[in-house]
Amino acid sequence: MKKALWVIKIGGNVIDNPNQLALFLHDFAQLEGGKILIHGGGKIATQMAAQLGIETQMVNGRRITDGEMLNVVTMVYGGLVNKNIVARLQANGVNAIGMTGADANAIKAVKRPVKEVDFGFVGDLKEDSVNQEILSKLIESGLIPVFSALTHNGHGQLLNTNADTIASALAVGLSSIYETKLIYCFEKNGVLKDVNNDNSVIQNINPSFFEELTKEGIIADGMLPKLQNAFDAISKGVKEVYIGNAAKLSDIHQGDNFGTCLSLN
Amino acid sequence: MKKALWVIKIGGNVIDNPNQLALFLHDFAQLEGGKILIHGGGKIATQMAAQLGIETQMVNGRRITDGEMLNVVTMVYGGLVNKNIVARLQANGVNAIGMTGADANAIKAVKRPVKEVDFGFVGDLKEDSVNQEILSKLIESGLIPVFSALTHNGHGQLLNTNADTIASALAVGLSSIYETKLIYCFEKNGVLKDVNNDNSVIQNINPSFFEELTKEGIIADGMLPKLQNAFDAISKGVKEVYIGNAAKLSDIHQGDNFGTCLSLN
Repeated sequence: MKKALWVIKIGGNVIDNPNQLALFLHDFAQLEGGKILIHGGGKIATQMAAQLGIETQMVNGRRITDGEMLNVVTMVYGGLVNKNIVARLQANGVNAIGMTGADANAIKAVKRPVKEVDFGFVGDLKEDSVNQEILSKLIESGLIPVFSALTHNGHGQLLNTNADTIASALAVGLSSIYETKLIYCFEKNGVLKDVNNDNSVIQNINPSFFEELTKEGIIADGMLPKLQNAFDAISKGVKEVYIGNAAKLSDIHQGDNFGTCLSLN
Repeated sequence: MKKALWVIKIGGNVIDNPNQLALFLHDFAQLEGGKILIHGGGKIATQMAAQLGIETQMVNGRRITDGEMLNVVTMVYGGLVNKNIVARLQANGVNAIGMTGADANAIKAVKRPVKEVDFGFVGDLKEDSVNQEILSKLIESGLIPVFSALTHNGHGQLLNTNADTIASALAVGLSSIYETKLIYCFEKNGVLKDVNNDNSVIQNINPSFFEELTKEGIIADGMLPKLQNAFDAISKGVKEVYIGNAAKLSDIHQGDNFGTCLSLN
C-alpha cells in the first residue's frame, strides 16, 4: 500500500493575517505523515511593488509579470514569506525546507506562449513538470517541502506560477508514489449549498453529484473551475481533494469532516 | 577514505557583477564531486533598503540588523539572489537547492547577546550549529546546497549571519563526514606578498609560515583575521582552505594553483 501524502495549499488571505497563519501552521504541524505545503503570496507583493514604485501591469483584468514584478515576487514569495513560514514551522517541530520549482529542479515549467496577451514571466506546467524522484527523496529524508508559487524553465529563468496549479501538479505527479490527498484552504468553510450560509457545507461530492450541482446552478462562478480542476486531479490519480477553511484544518486530524471532500465515490 | 566536499563562499562583489557571476557559476558547475555554495548579498540589499526608505542603522561603524532590515535581507539574500543563483546553476547542469539555515534546520544560531551594542537580529554560530545528518543526506541525494547568509534560532526567528562564518562552520561541521576543502573567493588573486602587486600571490602557507609572515607585517589588517579564522577551521578538521579570485576558480579543476592554499603542511 502506498503511504499517504498531504498536499496542502494556503492562499494569500491566510498569509496576510498573522493570527490565522500562526493557527494554520500549528494545525499543519499536527498533521501526521508526509506533507507538502504550497503558499500564495498575499498582498505583500503588491504592497512591496507599490512601495518600490513598480506598477502592476494588467491586461484584460489579468496581471502581467514583467521583469520588475518577477523580482518583487521572487523577493516576497520566495524569500520573505517562504523563509518566515519555514522558520516558524521549524519552531513547531516540522522539518520544513523552503523551495521554488528551481530548487532541486523540483518543478520545471514553460513560459506561457504569447497569444493575444503576453503574460510575461509566467510559467505553465506540463504533465512531466514535477520531479517525483527528488521530491520523494526529500520526503523520505523526513523533510516537509514548502513551496512558493515560483518555478523555472531549466534555462536559468524563474517563472511566476499559480499556486493552485502547483499544488494540483504536485498531488498528481506524486500520486504514482504516494496516496496523495490535496487540500485547498480558502476563506470559506467549503463548497456551500447556500452561498450566504457559511454552515451549509456540502460534505461530499462525487462526479455525478458535481454534474447535478452544476446543473442546478449551486456550483457556479469561481467555484466551477476550482471543482473542475479538482476532479481533473482526481482523474489523474489524486485520491481525494478537500476544499475548506484554513482555520479548521485541525478537523482533519481530529477525524472530523474538513470542508468539502471530492472523490470518485 | 572520506569523499571530498568543496565548500565555496563568494562575496558581494561577485553577486554585483553579472558577467563575473556568470563566469563563476560556469566554473562552479565544472567542479567535480560534492559541493556547497555560500553567497553574500552584495549591494542590492542596501539599495533595496534605500528604495524602501529604510535607513541602515550603524553603531561604531558596524551594521545593525533591525526588523525592517532583516526583512530586506530575507527578501534579497534568501529570495532574489539565492533563487536566481539556483535557477542559473540548474541551467548549468547543477542540481542546486537554495537554503537558509532555517531550511531543513540546517544551521541553528543564537541571537548575538546584547553587550555594549545590540546588533539586532544577528545570529552567532555554535560548535553544534551545523546539522551534518540532513546536509549529508541532501548531498548524497545529488543535491548542491546553495546558502544565503541567513540562519534561524529554532524558535521561529530568522537571523542575519556572516557568510564567511557560515562557510567556515559548514566546512568544519561536515569534516567528520567529508574531506572538506573551504574556498573563500574574493577580489584579489590570493594572499599577496606585495599588496600592490596582484601577481605576488603566496601559494602555500602553513602555521609556522603564517607566524613568520605576520611578524614581518606581510599579513596585516583585514587579511589577518581572515587567515586566523582559516587556520582555526583547519585546526577543527578542514583539510585545506583556499583564498583566491572568484574569476579564477577554473584553475582548481584544471589542476593549477588557485590563489593561496592554507594547510597544516
